[in-house]
Amino acid sequence: MATERRTVIADAAIRTLARAGGRGLTHRAVDKEAGLPIGSTSYYLRTRADLLRAAVDRLAELDEAALAPAAGATLAADLARVTDQLLTTDRERLLARYELALESVRRPELREILAAGTRRVRGAIEQRLSELGVATPREVADAALALVDGLLFAELTAVEGQQRGRAELERVLSRLLGTR
Amino acid sequence: MATERRTVIADAAIRTLARAGGRGLTHRAVDKEAGLPIGSTSYYLRTRADLLRAAVDRLAELDEAALAPAAGATLAADLARVTDQLLTTDRERLLARYELALESVRRPELREILAAGTRRVRGAIEQRLSELGVATPREVADAALALVDGLLFAELTAVEGQQRGRAELERVLSRLLGTR
Repeated sequence: MATERRTVIADAAIRTLARAGGRGLTHRAVDKEAGLPIGSTSYYLRTRADLLRAAVDRLAELDEAALAPAAGATLAADLARVTDQLLTTDRERLLARYELALESVRRPELREILAAGTRRVRGAIEQRLSELGVATPREVADAALALVDGLLFAELTAVEGQQRGRAELERVLSRLLGTR
Repeated sequence: MATERRTVIADAAIRTLARAGGRGLTHRAVDKEAGLPIGSTSYYLRTRADLLRAAVDRLAELDEAALAPAAGATLAADLARVTDQLLTTDRERLLARYELALESVRRPELREILAAGTRRVRGAIEQRLSELGVATPREVADAALALVDGLLFAELTAVEGQQRGRAELERVLSRLLGTR
């Protein structure tokens, strides 16, 4: 099915970005990473912008899915869980995002695509804050996302053995979000 | 003087990182960027690790200097000012730091060097929080640094015209730091 094939390609694009950086993201590299015949990626995603957009959309989709509330968990706990996952099992998604971000400094058109992804993820947090009765959900969601991003950056570059655990991540997030 | 020359070289290394990335940081590229005879950089900083350390030390020194309290300003206001500077006039420092961080993912020995720089900057914030009577200055300094890093990441990749101004940065930081 076409939808399934596009997902396979987008996932391969994410792995390619994580491994080879923005400069390594070519249609051929993605064909190879996905184990598909040469030409497959460019059949579904003609231009490099299409390819970048598919990767960013897929990143946002996976982040949104990861953020789905765990039963009984506070928002701080859910954000800490996702942060921890991005540093361990989902590390490729984090590295791909940094590569895209650095590329966007030199290619402003990529920022629009990244911004759309961020809006999706922020929207999910904002809705949850609204449901919790927070007065300025948009502002708090923005700050929470910034804090998560900063924690990710700190942990990714932290010296082995000095990283925060999930409990400490949750403590830091709770400071900003209260007990929500 | 030798100290002055080392500073000129470290500053050139930062500009080289910002412009050409970690892969572009060579002794020769820094000689050229600094306008010095070939061989100058390797005379002062023999290995690539020495060169990286000099760049990171200089980044920390400049960040510390930028964080020096402005008369009558709250910590949130000072952090907002530095954040704003890193996104505008001091953008090269920010880009250099991201390039170093991404390189550290693949080179764990670089993380020790980056961590030393972070400790320096965090120490300056921590001391100020101590003086303000905050009970857990280390934890709050850590969280504040993470928030600043997240805001920097968000703004750097934000769509033109949708960036936060300095006043909004200060509002977000104040939420975490209170009125300090």
